[in-house]
Amino acid sequence: MSPHDPSKQNAVDMNRAREATSIDVASVRDFIHGGAALWRRHQKTVQTLENDPLFDKSRRPFLTRKEQYIRGQAMTRRLLELQDIHQWSAEDLSVAFAYLDDGLPIGLHNIAFEPIFRLQASPELSAKYSVLIANKGIHGCYLQTELAHGSNVGRLETTATYLPDTREFDIHSPTLTSTKWWIGALGKTATHGVVQAKLILPGGKDMGPHLFFVQLRDLDTHKVLPGLTIGDIGPKALGGFAATDNGFARFDHVRIPKGNMLSKFAGVTDSGEYVTPPHAKLSYGGMLYIRSGRMVTTAGWAIGRAVTIAVRYATVRRQGEIGRDKLERQVITYPSLNVRLVPIVARAYVFIELGRFLQRGFDSLAKGLSSGDMSQLAEMHMMTSGLKILVTTSSIQDIETARRSMGGHGYSGFSGVGKLYADYLPAATYEGENFVLDGQVIRAALKSFRNITASSTPPKFSPTSAYLRLLVEKDVLPPELSPASWRNVTIPILLLEWRAALLVHEAAQTIGQPDSTLTHRVSRAVTEAFVAGQVGQMIAALGSTALKPHEAEVVSKIYLLYLLTTVESALVDLLSYGLFRAVPSGKSRDPTRELRVAIGALCSETLLPEVIGLTDSFGFSDWELDSALGVFDGRAYEAMWKRAQDEPLNQTEVTEAYAESIKPILLRGQRLASKSKL
Amino acid sequence: MSPHDPSKQNAVDMNRAREATSIDVASVRDFIHGGAALWRRHQKTVQTLENDPLFDKSRRPFLTRKEQYIRGQAMTRRLLELQDIHQWSAEDLSVAFAYLDDGLPIGLHNIAFEPIFRLQASPELSAKYSVLIANKGIHGCYLQTELAHGSNVGRLETTATYLPDTREFDIHSPTLTSTKWWIGALGKTATHGVVQAKLILPGGKDMGPHLFFVQLRDLDTHKVLPGLTIGDIGPKALGGFAATDNGFARFDHVRIPKGNMLSKFAGVTDSGEYVTPPHAKLSYGGMLYIRSGRMVTTAGWAIGRAVTIAVRYATVRRQGEIGRDKLERQVITYPSLNVRLVPIVARAYVFIELGRFLQRGFDSLAKGLSSGDMSQLAEMHMMTSGLKILVTTSSIQDIETARRSMGGHGYSGFSGVGKLYADYLPAATYEGENFVLDGQVIRAALKSFRNITASSTPPKFSPTSAYLRLLVEKDVLPPELSPASWRNVTIPILLLEWRAALLVHEAAQTIGQPDSTLTHRVSRAVTEAFVAGQVGQMIAALGSTALKPHEAEVVSKIYLLYLLTTVESALVDLLSYGLFRAVPSGKSRDPTRELRVAIGALCSETLLPEVIGLTDSFGFSDWELDSALGVFDGRAYEAMWKRAQDEPLNQTEVTEAYAESIKPILLRGQRLASKSKL
Repeated sequence: MSPHDPSKQNAVDMNRAREATSIDVASVRDFIHGGAALWRRHQKTVQTLENDPLFDKSRRPFLTRKEQYIRGQAMTRRLLELQDIHQWSAEDLSVAFAYLDDGLPIGLHNIAFEPIFRLQASPELSAKYSVLIANKGIHGCYLQTELAHGSNVGRLETTATYLPDTREFDIHSPTLTSTKWWIGALGKTATHGVVQAKLILPGGKDMGPHLFFVQLRDLDTHKVLPGLTIGDIGPKALGGFAATDNGFARFDHVRIPKGNMLSKFAGVTDSGEYVTPPHAKLSYGGMLYIRSGRMVTTAGWAIGRAVTIAVRYATVRRQGEIGRDKLERQVITYPSLNVRLVPIVARAYVFIELGRFLQRGFDSLAKGLSSGDMSQLAEMHMMTSGLKILVTTSSIQDIETARRSMGGHGYSGFSGVGKLYADYLPAATYEGENFVLDGQVIRAALKSFRNITASSTPPKFSPTSAYLRLLVEKDVLPPELSPASWRNVTIPILLLEWRAALLVHEAAQTIGQPDSTLTHRVSRAVTEAFVAGQVGQMIAALGSTALKPHEAEVVSKIYLLYLLTTVESALVDLLSYGLFRAVPSGKSRDPTRELRVAIGALCSETLLPEVIGLTDSFGFSDWELDSALGVFDGRAYEAMWKRAQDEPLNQTEVTEAYAESIKPILLRGQRLASKSKL
Repeated sequence: MSPHDPSKQNAVDMNRAREATSIDVASVRDFIHGGAALWRRHQKTVQTLENDPLFDKSRRPFLTRKEQYIRGQAMTRRLLELQDIHQWSAEDLSVAFAYLDDGLPIGLHNIAFEPIFRLQASPELSAKYSVLIANKGIHGCYLQTELAHGSNVGRLETTATYLPDTREFDIHSPTLTSTKWWIGALGKTATHGVVQAKLILPGGKDMGPHLFFVQLRDLDTHKVLPGLTIGDIGPKALGGFAATDNGFARFDHVRIPKGNMLSKFAGVTDSGEYVTPPHAKLSYGGMLYIRSGRMVTTAGWAIGRAVTIAVRYATVRRQGEIGRDKLERQVITYPSLNVRLVPIVARAYVFIELGRFLQRGFDSLAKGLSSGDMSQLAEMHMMTSGLKILVTTSSIQDIETARRSMGGHGYSGFSGVGKLYADYLPAATYEGENFVLDGQVIRAALKSFRNITASSTPPKFSPTSAYLRLLVEKDVLPPELSPASWRNVTIPILLLEWRAALLVHEAAQTIGQPDSTLTHRVSRAVTEAFVAGQVGQMIAALGSTALKPHEAEVVSKIYLLYLLTTVESALVDLLSYGLFRAVPSGKSRDPTRELRVAIGALCSETLLPEVIGLTDSFGFSDWELDSALGVFDGRAYEAMWKRAQDEPLNQTEVTEAYAESIKPILLRGQRLASKSKL
């Protein structure tokens, strides 16, 4: 009798799961990708890349950081060659870069350096460099963070002292801690940079941080220019961003011409007088742009990758109880597992669509900013801060939940999720540590609260402060809850708005003596109320998308699951403030039970048969996922076996450590043993 | 005017923090280390290691995995030489191994292979090998997990078929998925192994998993023996456990003599009849031993390391508001930060002491097991499962919280916390995924519940079921809460016991239709009630330790903080079941506010001045921590600068990628730019 072979069963299980899915994957896939045309572009680009040996990933896990950096530069060169061959537009190219799952130095040129330069360079400087920059004829980086100060630009130590005699700025690092640090692409790559430095005018007047365009390396030899000390800051934690040369730079009185100040909005006259900018916060514009730029959508794709891998492996992995087919159960069918994974699918769906929705707002902000209109800035700043915290914190956790759901194999480098985690992780700390940003959100929320409560005329509510109406309207009470409440999208939205309203009220009442976590809870509550409102609009709009009715229905269930799990995560607040007005039913004593039952039913019944279809709809190829556990055909165990054979330790039967170390250890032990037996 | 230099301020701030600490660090340090003698041994061993160039860590971040494996073997050899030189006992040696922060293959010999062999080998097999094993004259590993099955040993596929004719076992891997996988020290190191395999008796009778002693490599050449296919499974996620050769092995009808079965408790007669073991669960003993062995204490030391680094960096890092000294505030003084870090110090203190307390229980279990007494096994199994989930889950989170508290620099490889995280992480999934173990805890808890509620005589409560008394006693109500409640250790313990009791009651009432997270919440509630009771005993016992009264008082505050933060994390359950009987005070509408205020006061006032002393008391040397941010003298920025200079990318001014990739990219861009300008 030949034994049952789990690795043969893998493909059978995956095929059956695909057959069982009721949704039309192509339709949902086009929806997620923003239309059939964008999906086709995606697919075409990915196919070009995955068929090019230069983008092969099979050796990557065995490369040193230095080798990964060199490989990254080779990929960059090749991508530009492909642009020439295929006549890609700049947009096509940036899409192609986004499909590489290595953070590359050129990314900093594209995402940080170029937009800031474009937004803030004077017309003269722009005329000189913008075409060169657009074609990557020079390679830029954005030098903000220093060894001792990060996103709080007001405390940066680097100085740019204006010298009227020569009409130059003297860029200088006065201390060790003023060394620019963490600057992506600075370490070994960039030829130029935009430097954040305190502008010092004649007489020593400190005008705060401003931006300066500085050449860093010689364009003929790539050597570091005189007066500069530049290098790579070393490996990142967990091996993250290995291909990026985050670097340091010290300036020893480096002179640049006056015209190199990025002076579109703030400048210095020849004699050294400051030309006042129209809005004090202007120089933060670049950072805001970075922070908002596709951050939410990016998070959605990142957790989408992780959960695609986890869902596929959970579909083919069988463990534990014997089911009707005489085999162990597919682990995806265990409620304790699917209740962890399906909500991640939901968050991926929400973030991808929400990001696109918000992107329009950011684009209009950027336009307004460049024409001097600042009215949206404060609100947009609060929203981007709140969203950054919410989205990065939950996405980091989701990637790790997906990894952990795979049991022991999730800890293999070949699962692919570890690299994803390591590369996504810094989102929690770059561009403002999440706990620092909380403070910005609560300040803005309290300001809205005071404006509204102090107003004598009927207050106006923006999308980010709509929840405050609940404090103003008369005779409104939180909803009474029944099991049916959890099928109704308005209920979770209303609960999350109530929670935001009462938490902001609490913060206003206890100002000066906040409890130890109030700031963080207010920030989260306000942001989740805003997002819930947006999700409500997204559900309402599903009918007018290209999705067919059944597919729209399934996606609306996914969005509902997002809302319900958000309510579940808010239970402490809802219960504390008496907002969760439910009574236990049946033999239960737990008023929150029906909410959890509803979540469980969505995960384990309604959405479970669709989950392979819903993750297939992300459209990831095996090359993109680079995961032995998440292969499309389900043959996870064969893929694990195959990949292990490439491990460098396996290239010699007897390890190099044998003669030097292992043999002497064994001989010593054998000698001692035979002695002790005598 | 020479500018203020933050890197010079670092040492000043650290010295002041040490002066401000009121506790006697030596006294607390001795307490944590289990006595002055053990501390001295620790210190002496660490000094021996840190002064030996072979244990230098400065190049480690730049090594490939293969190089780290080879380095690990060299360190192992050197450690055994040091044992010979310094005449270390076996205990001294194992202590020394524990101080290396590289997971080494020899660890698997010591922790898995040798104890299992010692516990279960027959006297004959033991006579032949135990002295050799003790002296590491052979190197062993423990082959349990397979490619498709892990801790559920009942489903392993590897077979050991008894052949009466030759009195041999035929060890065989019938499928790809039966390949042994993840086996530490198997890949390139081990000469022998203990193999978990299904015992098949003549007639094909499957007796389930048993253990067999198998030679894997030739003792003269180190070549893999015929019939075996062995290799390394490849890199781990996040670069974890780089020095360990987790391996795979396939058996192609490998014959071993009948005497190689580990048959102390279960054997086969020459003719192939099974000799019944006294207790069916016996073969799980090895695993239980591994799981319980110092797991709790190990977690305490791991988070102690992380939080020492984070607290030191937060003491010298200044950001944001200007304080009375005209400088920015030390970030440790921000409540949003210290309320995250001080509770980690508390958990480290609790776990280190709790682990020692529980260890005595495990030792008595191991003695009982070896003499055939199984009475404690079920309860011990539940407790170790629950503790493993609680301790590993919270410790992984704490290490990451510590890392994130350091802002951007926490993502540097030189922070040291990334490696700690990567190496600690698999604790969540090895030896039973945490969510699988939840099921074991709830089953045991429900059994206790039924025994107690069905009992006609007054029930007996064990330490793990004491909370159930609350369901049996008449006229008891949960305590009414006031601000003073949070200074009284009995209140949080009682609240956590009430929560466990009502959750188990809920589970019994809703059995068959549990809500989606009930199993997990019950498991956590039961374990936290048990731990809280133990912490209550630890507080009561502080007076009889060697700690002086003031130090005992501070440690009791640390333990209290542990209890309060545990209550905070249990608020959803406490509020759902009406167990949190507090009314809001003042202008607040939040009944939980006073609990959070109490936690905040402990973190930001009472314990804040002690936190450098409390972390110094762990006694970590700079060599042990291997962190630029956590250096003892506080000079974090200087250490970061120094370490970055060693980065391999910095050893050439112009990168190797320049000629090959960067230069062509720049030239192409310059060509395109000049074309487009024409």
